[in-house]
Amino acid sequence: MMKLFFLILFCAIFLTVSSDSDNMQDTCPTAQGEQSIFFINGYPCKNPTEINAQDFKSTKLTVAGDTDNYLQSNVTMLTASEFPGLNTLGLSVSRTDLERDGSVPLHSHPRSSELLFVVSGVVFAGFVDTNDKIFQTVLRKGDVFVFPKGLLHFCLSGGFERATALSFYNSQSPGVVNIGGVFGVDQERIVNITRSLVTDHDEL
Amino acid sequence: MMKLFFLILFCAIFLTVSSDSDNMQDTCPTAQGEQSIFFINGYPCKNPTEINAQDFKSTKLTVAGDTDNYLQSNVTMLTASEFPGLNTLGLSVSRTDLERDGSVPLHSHPRSSELLFVVSGVVFAGFVDTNDKIFQTVLRKGDVFVFPKGLLHFCLSGGFERATALSFYNSQSPGVVNIGGVFGVDQERIVNITRSLVTDHDEL
Amino acid sequence: MMKLFFLILFCAIFLTVSSDSDNMQDTCPTAQGEQSIFFINGYPCKNPTEINAQDFKSTKLTVAGDTDNYLQSNVTMLTASEFPGLNTLGLSVSRTDLERDGSVPLHSHPRSSELLFVVSGVVFAGFVDTNDKIFQTVLRKGDVFVFPKGLLHFCLSGGFERATALSFYNSQSPGVVNIGGVFGVDQERIVNITRSLVTDHDEL
Amino acid sequence: MMKLFFLILFCAIFLTVSSDSDNMQDTCPTAQGEQSIFFINGYPCKNPTEINAQDFKSTKLTVAGDTDNYLQSNVTMLTASEFPGLNTLGLSVSRTDLERDGSVPLHSHPRSSELLFVVSGVVFAGFVDTNDKIFQTVLRKGDVFVFPKGLLHFCLSGGFERATALSFYNSQSPGVVNIGGVFGVDQERIVNITRSLVTDHDEL
Amino acid sequence: MMKLFFLILFCAIFLTVSSDSDNMQDTCPTAQGEQSIFFINGYPCKNPTEINAQDFKSTKLTVAGDTDNYLQSNVTMLTASEFPGLNTLGLSVSRTDLERDGSVPLHSHPRSSELLFVVSGVVFAGFVDTNDKIFQTVLRKGDVFVFPKGLLHFCLSGGFERATALSFYNSQSPGVVNIGGVFGVDQERIVNITRSLVTDHDEL
Amino acid sequence: MMKLFFLILFCAIFLTVSSDSDNMQDTCPTAQGEQSIFFINGYPCKNPTEINAQDFKSTKLTVAGDTDNYLQSNVTMLTASEFPGLNTLGLSVSRTDLERDGSVPLHSHPRSSELLFVVSGVVFAGFVDTNDKIFQTVLRKGDVFVFPKGLLHFCLSGGFERATALSFYNSQSPGVVNIGGVFGVDQERIVNITRSLVTDHDEL
Repeated sequence: MMKLFFLILFCAIFLTVSSDSDNMQDTCPTAQGEQSIFFINGYPCKNPTEINAQDFKSTKLTVAGDTDNYLQSNVTMLTASEFPGLNTLGLSVSRTDLERDGSVPLHSHPRSSELLFVVSGVVFAGFVDTNDKIFQTVLRKGDVFVFPKGLLHFCLSGGFERATALSFYNSQSPGVVNIGGVFGVDQERIVNITRSLVTDHDEL
Repeated sequence: MMKLFFLILFCAIFLTVSSDSDNMQDTCPTAQGEQSIFFINGYPCKNPTEINAQDFKSTKLTVAGDTDNYLQSNVTMLTASEFPGLNTLGLSVSRTDLERDGSVPLHSHPRSSELLFVVSGVVFAGFVDTNDKIFQTVLRKGDVFVFPKGLLHFCLSGGFERATALSFYNSQSPGVVNIGGVFGVDQERIVNITRSLVTDHDEL
Repeated sequence: MMKLFFLILFCAIFLTVSSDSDNMQDTCPTAQGEQSIFFINGYPCKNPTEINAQDFKSTKLTVAGDTDNYLQSNVTMLTASEFPGLNTLGLSVSRTDLERDGSVPLHSHPRSSELLFVVSGVVFAGFVDTNDKIFQTVLRKGDVFVFPKGLLHFCLSGGFERATALSFYNSQSPGVVNIGGVFGVDQERIVNITRSLVTDHDEL
Repeated sequence: MMKLFFLILFCAIFLTVSSDSDNMQDTCPTAQGEQSIFFINGYPCKNPTEINAQDFKSTKLTVAGDTDNYLQSNVTMLTASEFPGLNTLGLSVSRTDLERDGSVPLHSHPRSSELLFVVSGVVFAGFVDTNDKIFQTVLRKGDVFVFPKGLLHFCLSGGFERATALSFYNSQSPGVVNIGGVFGVDQERIVNITRSLVTDHDEL
Repeated sequence: MMKLFFLILFCAIFLTVSSDSDNMQDTCPTAQGEQSIFFINGYPCKNPTEINAQDFKSTKLTVAGDTDNYLQSNVTMLTASEFPGLNTLGLSVSRTDLERDGSVPLHSHPRSSELLFVVSGVVFAGFVDTNDKIFQTVLRKGDVFVFPKGLLHFCLSGGFERATALSFYNSQSPGVVNIGGVFGVDQERIVNITRSLVTDHDEL
Repeated sequence: MMKLFFLILFCAIFLTVSSDSDNMQDTCPTAQGEQSIFFINGYPCKNPTEINAQDFKSTKLTVAGDTDNYLQSNVTMLTASEFPGLNTLGLSVSRTDLERDGSVPLHSHPRSSELLFVVSGVVFAGFVDTNDKIFQTVLRKGDVFVFPKGLLHFCLSGGFERATALSFYNSQSPGVVNIGGVFGVDQERIVNITRSLVTDHDEL
């Protein structure tokens, strides 16, 4: 029974809070373990005596994600859940892989702005402001683009090769609002609409 | 020429900033006047000696907006631009009027959460979280509902009469992201999709 | 003993934190249950699998509060404690009912500004800035008025009928500083002083 | 006329904003000069090439303020207006001098908490929370006490000699809400009420 | 076993969070007790029924710290860990004692600005901005100086007597980045470098 | 004279503020033009009618910086000054190029955390917490590492080839505190000390 006791108590530590405001401590890498039976807005810290440099490093962006899907794209997101060292630091990162015809259709992040950096390939990227005006451009290796907080944006492969981009977010939990999920419409339609935004505008 | 000088200089004061963080002053009602030729993130204050109680009052929500349109609805938004006293206080308000078949289709506010209060009539309201889960309900006179920051939400008239609701935002400039504007699809489709969300779910 | 164990452990979940800063999650409705033996600055979340639309709705403002008291007024406040869905969203709401001679005497909210909307009747409302200057006015059905964060303010029924108003706050826990409580003076005096502010100023 | 032009333009620079959030620059000492004809929430910076160490130093707290008044007390407040270097740093400071019977009656700061340090003498200090509970104590040389943001608090000389205290605020513009100013009551009454709080509680 | 159970559970309460953002409660004095086996970003609150005025008072700055060390200086820091009432209020305080040749060499606070008040003696104080420009001055009894957030700064005794200063921080956990600790160089070198900054500049 | 007038007035617009808090507008690309004679904490916006997609794109990170210097390294920083679209969005980015023996010695950012992504080559990276504990590791192509706000950190080329890394900051103006600049010591010493941190620790 003591075992059960400790198991449950251990779970109980997964209930705490962090937010994108100023911290009380230098670091607070996410404590990881069994599923908690209690819930709260954020993650608790590891035992400080067990924190080490590996908590602040991740190798999960070194390989391309699986793009064998309808969108021919993959986004690998690292938040404080997958990358403990991010906890309480107020930033996160993702890797986007796009096949030759790949796309990441219209979506928004309710809790952060995003900065996109093109690692390889050509990417069409754009966002729509609250006056429904579209700002879009074509990006090549090394170019950066920004999407303001909460606005709808998208990216498409724009070349004849695969493209890879890196995205930075100024929240450790940016969240994703997918138009497709909301509308319940089929992916093809979403992709077509996203693509039509690009073809409607030549000033790229 | 001095007149022109003063005119332009007067314009020049419309260039300043306020944000939803802690203030430096008790109040800073929006200074109003000619169109500025300069631009900045927010509004300047009125001359403190001219601030009076009327700056903090608005009567613009006393009458229903014009609902003679395809959506059969109207949203009258009061931000620091229409209601000077809101400037720097970090909140704003709107009135929504819905005809018997009226709707405010899916949209989000990139800079605030929203609290909806039903003044009269019956309203179907709902939002979609970042896991694409829909939370919706039916609201009657005096009921309140909340839409979290940055998430897509909607409201429809749910009764056999007109409905009026009041919305409160915890930003003086919540902004509106319209799905329809982005997609360039016709309003009918948007309304149908929004309505289909409701009919798909009986647990209201 | 296991029962006691679970009881205490369940209590232990009521110890967590939320604040009016950016969230880590879409929603975090207040978990409700037995009284906790531990204490913290805010509320924990419900189990995510049990969150439903009713958490984001409240019907507690549909009926008038009991105004059979010396002040002939009642304020029904909804914070994250009474309305789970508000937890971590940074806003709250209250309903004020005023009899023909009712008043809500001078008080302040240490953690939020307030926006007042008159649902019915006539209301005298005002606030005092840090230079002791009074800003007051008379409000009728549909009018709105704002009280800046931390400043003393009041409202009185101003007509020959009952009045009802709705207040919005940009904190989920605005708090109330009552002058009467501090001074230990009788309510009559407080009401008289509050009323004297109004009669001293005709420019309403 | 050019002179007038430059004069007015110079005035025009006094219209800008700062707030207690994270800065864009290391420092921004308040620019000081003629009275502006324009107004905004905060202060502009000095020309960076003219910033020097003296902007970050103040000698204004070295001498006692004039306590020859009814309250037998004086508070010398240093905000970004009197102490340029404070601008945008999010903190301010004041010196309180109390004669043998001196008092600083009940008041609150709408935009900051306060930490009080007793430099000399004996001081009774206290605050009232939002449940009307009073927390008070007696402080001697070197003792510190804190008053939470927005709550009513006071201090009285508690000994047979003059007392001097230093107060620190975590806003560059804490503001002061004076009960006396609001109520329009005479100072004697306010002081008596404040004193009665102390004599009612022996657990100091 | 129940004892162990309660002991561990008691520990479990030490895992919660507070941050320098707006609070949910008036106060939340740090709960103190046995060492926790769980960890989080901040401190939990005391049982509200046990909070009393002594939680908001500290006498730990009344006596000089031990300056019998190489630096001939001592800094006594009061954060929410040593002074429970500071928890969640967003400020902290320290006392610095300097012998005739004492110094507090170059360091920075990653989470707050600092305001220094000289209680007695003469102090040389300075900081270095992000353009490597040094701002330094000499301070006498009653003078104040500010060090912006995150910038390197120092203070040295500047007279023929002991000096005492008080420092205020606008975070309850400012943190200290010591150059010496990082470089692993001997203290003598750090002190010499710090002193050389002063002697290189005569405009004090 | 009118020309001069307009010229000066145009300058006058460079005086405004933005901060890393919630915005009032979707975007506010930095207005660029002649040198201002007035100064403020941040940048004004471009005329909204002139904002276009190119404001949100930068190609300045596509080429390696000049590493022909003692450190054999180069950091190209993009803030709102070089990349207009970043203004008010609360993030910035830099590119670091390291020759085979290149280094970016110990420094800190007073206003942001940093996330480092290795584009090519091998990089040793580390930071020092406020307990003087060093957290360091070796990073290869695609690896990420984080440096918490305000803490000293460094990176060195760790391989037999050039290395390139991208850094993301959650402030539009992170600032840089250089130890070398402060100490006035020669670069060689700084580099040696930084390198010694690495060689002292084998657990990379």
